[in-house]
Amino acid sequence: MSESLLPSAIPDFWAVIPAGGSGTRLWPLSRESSPKFLHDLTGSGQSLLQGTVDRLTPLCEDRVMVVTGVSHVDAVRGQLPTLGVENLLTEPSRRESLPAIGLAAAILAQQDPEAILGSFAADHVINDVVAFCECVAEAVHVARTGKLVTIGIEPNRPSSGFGYIEVGEELLVEGAPRAREVKAFVEKPDGPTAQEYFHGGAHWWNAGMFVVRAETLMQLIAQYQPRLAEYLREIAARPIRLAELWPRLTKITIDNAIAEPASVDGHVAVIPATFTWDDVGDFASLATLLMGRQDEPGVKVLGESELVVMRDATGVVAPGSGRTVVALGIQDVVVVDTMDAVLVTTRGRAQDVKKLVEQLKLDGRAHLT
Amino acid sequence: MSESLLPSAIPDFWAVIPAGGSGTRLWPLSRESSPKFLHDLTGSGQSLLQGTVDRLTPLCEDRVMVVTGVSHVDAVRGQLPTLGVENLLTEPSRRESLPAIGLAAAILAQQDPEAILGSFAADHVINDVVAFCECVAEAVHVARTGKLVTIGIEPNRPSSGFGYIEVGEELLVEGAPRAREVKAFVEKPDGPTAQEYFHGGAHWWNAGMFVVRAETLMQLIAQYQPRLAEYLREIAARPIRLAELWPRLTKITIDNAIAEPASVDGHVAVIPATFTWDDVGDFASLATLLMGRQDEPGVKVLGESELVVMRDATGVVAPGSGRTVVALGIQDVVVVDTMDAVLVTTRGRAQDVKKLVEQLKLDGRAHLT
Repeated sequence: MSESLLPSAIPDFWAVIPAGGSGTRLWPLSRESSPKFLHDLTGSGQSLLQGTVDRLTPLCEDRVMVVTGVSHVDAVRGQLPTLGVENLLTEPSRRESLPAIGLAAAILAQQDPEAILGSFAADHVINDVVAFCECVAEAVHVARTGKLVTIGIEPNRPSSGFGYIEVGEELLVEGAPRAREVKAFVEKPDGPTAQEYFHGGAHWWNAGMFVVRAETLMQLIAQYQPRLAEYLREIAARPIRLAELWPRLTKITIDNAIAEPASVDGHVAVIPATFTWDDVGDFASLATLLMGRQDEPGVKVLGESELVVMRDATGVVAPGSGRTVVALGIQDVVVVDTMDAVLVTTRGRAQDVKKLVEQLKLDGRAHLT
Repeated sequence: MSESLLPSAIPDFWAVIPAGGSGTRLWPLSRESSPKFLHDLTGSGQSLLQGTVDRLTPLCEDRVMVVTGVSHVDAVRGQLPTLGVENLLTEPSRRESLPAIGLAAAILAQQDPEAILGSFAADHVINDVVAFCECVAEAVHVARTGKLVTIGIEPNRPSSGFGYIEVGEELLVEGAPRAREVKAFVEKPDGPTAQEYFHGGAHWWNAGMFVVRAETLMQLIAQYQPRLAEYLREIAARPIRLAELWPRLTKITIDNAIAEPASVDGHVAVIPATFTWDDVGDFASLATLLMGRQDEPGVKVLGESELVVMRDATGVVAPGSGRTVVALGIQDVVVVDTMDAVLVTTRGRAQDVKKLVEQLKLDGRAHLT
C-alpha cells in the first residue's frame, strides 16, 4: 500500500505506549525479564513494540511516549534508539495502566492542554496500518469534542477471551462519520453470552485503545480518582518527586478506573476498527498470525524454518536455541524451544500456560519464568 | 537377591557380545556415532553394554569378547576399562551378526575346541540376573551335546515386533530339565498370526541369544556358509589378514545363515527364559522399562527427574541438555531433548522414528543422525 494513502500527521497528537505486561501465556518465549512486547512474534523482523511505534509514526511523527518498567528501560532504548530522553518514562514499579498512561497525560497536559493522546498497548498486532491510522484520525476528531474515545473491534467469532464494549447511537461528529457512543464496558463474558454478543452485533471487543485530550483525561482522573490526579500533576510539575509519590498511586487499570464510569456518564465514544487486531494472548493466537508453510499449511514456525522438521505433524513451533526441533505424528502441537526451557503443549491448552507459569514459580522454578 | 543364589562360574564358558546396531528408533538419544548400547536407557547408572557384561560375569568371569565397529572401540574401552586387549575385537566395517560372532567363535575354537560361547546382544535389558544365569547354565549343558541352543522368551502379549521360535518336544539333557527342541524360526508375524502364537503357546520370542560350542558353531558355519567359515578360520590363524578378508565376508545374520537351516536339520534347542527381557526397540518400549514417578505413575523420565515438569501430561521425557522440559495437557507424549535436536512424538508413533531418521538423512540432516 502506498504511503500517499495514509492520513497526514496530526501536529498535536501524541502516541502513548504503555509497555508492560509479561505475557506469561507465551512462556517460555516471553519472560518477566523479557516480556512479550520485546519479541518479534510474527516473524516480521520487528518486535511488537517496534511495530507499535512504526504504525503510529505517520500520525505522531516523533511525538511518542513509551512508559515502561525500570527493568525494561535498557531493552526498550536498544530497540528504539531514536527515542529522545524525554520520550521514555520509567515506572519505578508496576502500577497497572492508569498510573502509566496518567503520568504521560499529566506531562502532556502541562505542556499543552489541547494535546491529544492516543494510548496503545505495546504488544498488539494490527495488520493494516492505513485503516488503523484512519480510525485513529477519526478518533482524534471525536476526542477534540471532549470525549474519551476508544476503538472497538467488531468480533469475527464469539470469544470469551476479551472484554466487550456495548455500543449505542451514532454520534454526529465532523470528520468521524463512524463514531458511536459507548453505553457500557462489559467484562469477559461466559460462552453463551459471547455467542449472544456475536449474533447481536451491538458488542465489540475492547482492544484497550484510548484517544483523548490530555487535559480531558486529567479531568476524568480528577473526577473518578482525585488523589491519583493530584499526585500525577505533582509529579509532572516536579519530576524529582516521582520516586516518592509513585508507590502511593493506586494500582488500577484505565478501563476500571476511568473508561467504565465515564461510559455510564456518557463521556465515551467508539470508532469501529476496519483492521484486524490481535493481542497475541497465547500460542493458539500466535499460530493464527503466522503464515503456514507452502506445502505444509498446518505447520507454523516462529523463527528459523530450517530448524523445524514436521512429519505427519501440525501446529506451531518456535525454535529458539539453534537446535533442530522434530515433531512426528502429533497434531496441533505447540513446541517452544529456548536456551533453558522447552515447552510442549497443544493449541487447545494454550490458555493454560499462564497457570503453568504460576505453578513453576511456586515450585521453586522462578528463575525460568 | 544374594549372590549365593547365582550359578557358579563355568570355566570354559565365554561371553561374546556383538556391540553393533545403531538403534535409530531411539533417535535422537541413540546416534550412529553413539549407538544405543553405549547409553544408560534404564536409569540404572550403567550403559546397556556395561549391564550386559555385568550380567554375564558370574558365569564367564573375565572370559568376555566384545565385537564392535571401529568407530566405537574407544567408547567401548572407556566404558569397560578392565577389558583386556585380546578381549575387544574390532570389525573394520559392519557385516551383520554372523561375521562378528563367527570371528569370536573362530578365535575361541582355535584356542580350545571345547570352549562354549554364549552370544548376547549388547543392547538388551534383563531384569533378573539369577534367572538369566540359570537359563544360560542350562543352555551350556545342552550345548555340550552339540546343539546350537537359544533362549526363548514366553510372550506376555501378542507382538508382531519380534521374530518367533516354534518349540517342539522336550529334550532329555542332564542339567537342563527345561530344554526343548526347536522346530523352526519364524519371521515377525502379522497381527492375527501374533494373536494365534500368543494363544497357542508353542511360539516364543527369539531374543537372539545363542549358546554353542565354539567348534560346533564353526562346523555349522562350514556347513551352511563354507566360504565364510574358511575366511574366519584364516583370520583367526593369521589376524594380519583381517583387513584383507573382512570385506569378503557375507553380510548376513546368524539367524538367517545358521539358526534357521540348523533348526530344520534338528540341530537347535531352546531354553525358556524365566526372566523378563526387552530389546528397548523404541521409546514405547523404553517407557515400559522406566519406573513411573511416585505421584505421577504415567510420567516416565530418563535422566534428571528435576528437569521435567508435567502438568496434565503423561508419557516419557528424556531431558538431555540440562534444559527444563515442560509438558502441558498432552497424553502419551515422547519428548527427547539433546544438545542439538529435540524430538516430540507420541508413544503410538514410536516405531516410526526409524523412518523419520532415514528421512532426515535424505533431507541433508545426516549430521543429526
